[in-house]
This record gives sequence, C-alpha cells and structure tokens, in this order.
Amino acid sequence: MTTEHYLALIMAGGSGTRLWPLSRQARPKQALRLVSDRTMFQLAVERLDPLFSVERIFVVTAAEQVKTLSQQMPQLPAGNFIVEPFPRGTASAIGLAALHLRRRDPDATMAVLTADHYIADTEGFRRVLAAAYQIAQQGHLVTLGIKPTGPSTGFGYIERGDFLGEVNGLAAYRVNAFREKPDAATAEAFVADGLHTWNSGMFIWRVDRILAEMHKQMPRFYEQLMQIDAALGADRESQVLSEVWPTVVPKTIDYGIMEGAGNVAVVPADIGWSDIGSWATLLEILPGDENGNVVMDADLLSVDTTKTLVYGNHRLVATIGLSDLVVVDTDDALLICPRDRAQDVKKIVDQLRAGGETRYL
Amino acid sequence: MTTEHYLALIMAGGSGTRLWPLSRQARPKQALRLVSDRTMFQLAVERLDPLFSVERIFVVTAAEQVKTLSQQMPQLPAGNFIVEPFPRGTASAIGLAALHLRRRDPDATMAVLTADHYIADTEGFRRVLAAAYQIAQQGHLVTLGIKPTGPSTGFGYIERGDFLGEVNGLAAYRVNAFREKPDAATAEAFVADGLHTWNSGMFIWRVDRILAEMHKQMPRFYEQLMQIDAALGADRESQVLSEVWPTVVPKTIDYGIMEGAGNVAVVPADIGWSDIGSWATLLEILPGDENGNVVMDADLLSVDTTKTLVYGNHRLVATIGLSDLVVVDTDDALLICPRDRAQDVKKIVDQLRAGGETRYL
Repeated sequence: MTTEHYLALIMAGGSGTRLWPLSRQARPKQALRLVSDRTMFQLAVERLDPLFSVERIFVVTAAEQVKTLSQQMPQLPAGNFIVEPFPRGTASAIGLAALHLRRRDPDATMAVLTADHYIADTEGFRRVLAAAYQIAQQGHLVTLGIKPTGPSTGFGYIERGDFLGEVNGLAAYRVNAFREKPDAATAEAFVADGLHTWNSGMFIWRVDRILAEMHKQMPRFYEQLMQIDAALGADRESQVLSEVWPTVVPKTIDYGIMEGAGNVAVVPADIGWSDIGSWATLLEILPGDENGNVVMDADLLSVDTTKTLVYGNHRLVATIGLSDLVVVDTDDALLICPRDRAQDVKKIVDQLRAGGETRYL
Repeated sequence: MTTEHYLALIMAGGSGTRLWPLSRQARPKQALRLVSDRTMFQLAVERLDPLFSVERIFVVTAAEQVKTLSQQMPQLPAGNFIVEPFPRGTASAIGLAALHLRRRDPDATMAVLTADHYIADTEGFRRVLAAAYQIAQQGHLVTLGIKPTGPSTGFGYIERGDFLGEVNGLAAYRVNAFREKPDAATAEAFVADGLHTWNSGMFIWRVDRILAEMHKQMPRFYEQLMQIDAALGADRESQVLSEVWPTVVPKTIDYGIMEGAGNVAVVPADIGWSDIGSWATLLEILPGDENGNVVMDADLLSVDTTKTLVYGNHRLVATIGLSDLVVVDTDDALLICPRDRAQDVKKIVDQLRAGGETRYL
C-alpha cells in the first residue's frame, strides 16, 4: 500500500447561519471554537495528522476567509489555499481544486473533507479514510456514509448495494442510490433496513476520475475548468478566473456528479460524526457538567439549572431555574431559546435579513 | 390651609441587591432607570412637583451616593443633601435629617419618602400627601398605608383603629398595631378584613414631634443627636458626626419609634404603589407590547415570545419560544430566570458574596 499520491482537500467556504449569533458571514462556523479551544477548521486539519503532512493538505475557500483560516493554521503552505472568487456550489469548488491538485500530482487520489463538522473518533476517521483511499485508487468514487444514530430528516441518505470488498476490516459497497432528505416515515424505514447511511459530504476519488466524470456529466463546466487550467500558474490566472467564474452555473457535487456517476462506492463509517446543525447539537455531543450544562467561554453561576448550553462572551452568566435552554452571548447580540427550538434561529436570521440589519449578519 | 412649613425628605441610602445584576452596591436601585428613562430617584423628586419646590426637598443618603444623585438632580440645592457617614438604619437617618430640617424651619412638618419605590398614580399620591400633612400638623405621626392588591407576605401590615377624620375625601384612622411580615394565612385574613394596609415606609410628622418621640423612646440616640446638633453648621460638624455615628446603634423607624409611639395615624392610599421587590414586579407594573413583553434598553427580536422581561444593555436580544422569563443584560453579567424565580436572585448574590466575587456586587 503506497500513500505517496494521497492528498486531502478541506472544503472551508461555508457561511452557515444556523449557529447565529456566534456564526456570521464574516465569522463562519469553521472559524469558530465550538467544541474545544481549537476552531472547527483547526480540528479538521489536525485530525488528519499523522495521515497527512501539512504539505499534502489543501483548502478551498472564499477570498474573504483566506486570511482568517491561514492565521488559524499558519503551518499550512500559502500555496495550498485555493481561492474561489465567490461560491458556485460544491461541484465547482471541487473542480477548481482538482485542477490544482492534478498540477501537484497527476496521479493524486484526493479526499474531499469538511471543515465545519465534528468527528469524535478521529482515529476511527483516519482508519476509514485510509480504507477509502485504497478503494478510490481502484477507480471508485467513494463516499463516506455515516451510520445513522437516529431517523434524521436533516440529511440525505445513501442506499448501499452489492458488497465490494473489505479493507482493514472496513466494508465497502456499491452505491444503489442517493436519497434526498426524507420525510419522517421514510427516515424511519431507512434506519430500520440497515442499508442506508447519511451523506456526510466527504468523498475520496482519484483526481483524474473526478475530472473525467465532470467532463462527462458537466461538459460546459469542464470546458470552463480547462480555460482556467490553461492559465494556472500564469500571470493571467486571476484574470481568467475572475472572467470565467461568474459564468459558472452553481451546482452541488451530489446533483452534478454523484447521482449520475457509475462506479460509486460507500464506506459506512461509525466515527461520532456530527454536522453541528444547530446549537442543540452541542448539548448532545459535548460533555456537560454534573447538571448536564455545557458551558463555553462563560463563567456560569447557576441555581437549579440543568441541560442548558451557555456559549459566553467571557462574562458572568447567572441562571436560576432553567432547563434545556440555549444561551449564546456575543458582543452585539444575545440569543435565548429552548434547545428544541434551536432550528428556529433561522427565523431570527431571516427577520434580520428582511429588516436589512446587516450588522448582525 | 398653609403649606409654608411643609418639607419633604427622600430616603435614598438603600443598596438593595434584589435587582441584581442591574443594581449593585455602587449603583443602587434608586439610581437606576427601571420604569422609564428617568431614574427612580428622579421620579421620586419629580412626582413632588408642584407640591414642593426643589428648595423644600431634602435627601438623606450615603456618602458614596451623593455624587450620582446630585448629578441626576442638579436642580436640588447641594445643601439639601444630608449625608450619613454610613447606614445606621432608618431611625438614625431620619433623626439626623430631622436636625437639619429643624434648622431650616423649627415649625416644619416633614414627609419621609422613599427613593426606590414606584407610584403609578402620582396625582393621587400628592393628594394623599397633602391630606397627611394636615393630619400631621395636628400632632399625629402619620403613616401612608397602601391598600393591598393581594395577600403579600413580603410587607409589614398596619392595622387601623378608630376613624380620625377626613381630609379632602381621604380618611385617616388611628393605628391599632403594626404587624410584621405575616405568613400566607395571616396575610389572607389581613386582606379579607379590610382593616389592614401595607406599611410603605412613608411617614409624615412634625419635626418637633418626631424628635420628641426619639427623646422618649430612643434616649441614648437622642443624646447622640444633640451632640451632632450642637456642631451643626460649625467647622467641627463633620468631625463630630464621624465620631458619634459609629457609636449609634442601628435601628429602623418601625421598631425604634412607630410600634411604641402614641398618637399614630394611618391614611390608606390607593396610588399604584410598588416597592419593585424583584424583576418579576416590573412585568406586573409596566405596560407590555402586544405579546406582554416588557423591553427596556434592548432591541428585542422575538419569535413566539410572551410575557418576558428584557432589560438590555443596548444590544440585540433574540428570543425564540420563551414565556414568563426574565433577562437582564449588563456590561459584565447576564441574568436569566423564570419570573416566578425572580426572588432567588438573592441566591446568586449570596453565592457571589460567598465566593468573594466583589466585582459583581
């Protein structure tokens, strides 16, 4: 088993608002210290150690985030940051990055990884990743499928088909179908049949394979990529990119490639993965104190308070008689909601947007 | 009816913690904007207009509060601030102030008023006060008794006796007894019998009468007062005060004078009075928005939020799915508790005190 052609690509361009008011446009989830004193991005890089040296870790992100991310991970080579002029969907970001990675190593096998997801079992993650690389080197487009911990309706599902083989005790299967976010009954059925895993957005494939697939399924985009590729490393690179990119039709990798591709494999993974879809998630994944309270960056002084999340701003937070509440305290905005309403943070953000309150976005 | 001998004394030395974290030792309740954009002290002075010109309004307070209070009410003559070296109970503060008021006018009748209570019906308050002065001029020690709005166990009660007379449609009664804070059953009985009113801590009496009563019931203190009186206005005034005051035994006016005095009268008053005993009180006395939310100094952005109090710090406060909650946001501390636990703010303050966290006190 040779790993010399392994490269990793961390997708770090997201700008979610589900963790408002901590996450903002200028301070997206990957840049936040959500689960420890390291940011999500730092954790995403660090959990690749020792599988990858930093020279083999690439980051694709938006122009306005490069500075923050490179400051958080100064050991990453500056040349490993691949900058999208602006977001055009995951397929486009991956295509652009694939060009860069192919320049680095025409025989590269790349993992597409996320910067803003939590993985509790980092050693298990590296084992799954190592297995997936081997399967990808055989020409498969490999997805990591997360074994469901419940019938979530918040994720797409991957239905596995024939057994493909086993690497280091980890099974790989042919993918039968990608399923969109299901309704509750369908989700129950998916979890019950044992054939479905969550689509984590993590993929492993040979660079030549994904570019060939783009050529086939996204011919217009592939043409655009080739225009960019021709300018890569030349003086006119940024000019060409800024001319071509606005003409790219936004597309996700799932719709653009995976659903229509042949030879797709899934490696089911049980690695304590979470996308931290809302503040409530942190109450589930982080260890609480003796009352089940999760406190970050705050000095909590509590009376009769249980299962409450306090993300602080280095201030004293005093609580009395609370349970299952979320409190997020930032410089200019304070959020308070029950954990089972944490999804509705979106409504607050929508109201701010509708009201033109951009300073809070 | 002549009012030329009417003087008012506002007791503004309190340092309560029931409205923590807004109220602090250095920022007591009377200095706060709790019910409007005027502070409680400003409201206490302003509701005397037009009954009193500012020359007739005196303030007794602690040394460390003089600056704040005089800045809040610059129109009050500096000489009208009477400064206690440190608190020694209400009887002592009133005794000290009585000396000063007697100097101003030996024939004065004084009202002892509170700086940190809310009075919704200020016109009614002035009518009650005007009536009480007339009764006091006859030699009675007059108390304002607040008609109970419910069987509160948080106040002392005054039991009225014989009808004394009526002034401007307001009845005055002889006081039968002062009752300490009752248990719930007793409070129910007090409210049911119609004879009991709450002890508001507001009194009206002739200055010579209260000093004579102190001479009789608190002879040791009266002696100390006479030592101070002899030095009043002289160079050695502050030296004498600072020598005598530490030897004064702390006593409240209720225990020290009222319970043992003869010729005590009560004027029952229905003036929308509240002592703002906790944050929950503000939800009762202040008008809410269409969802019953009371918001002060905050920009509230709410989804499904009702009957919630938000005292802000000029920040955005976003709430989802909350009801009957109290949120108080200050520079260095944030309080969150259900309204029915607002009394337990005391427990937080006790914990801070026990932990030596004086910066929050």
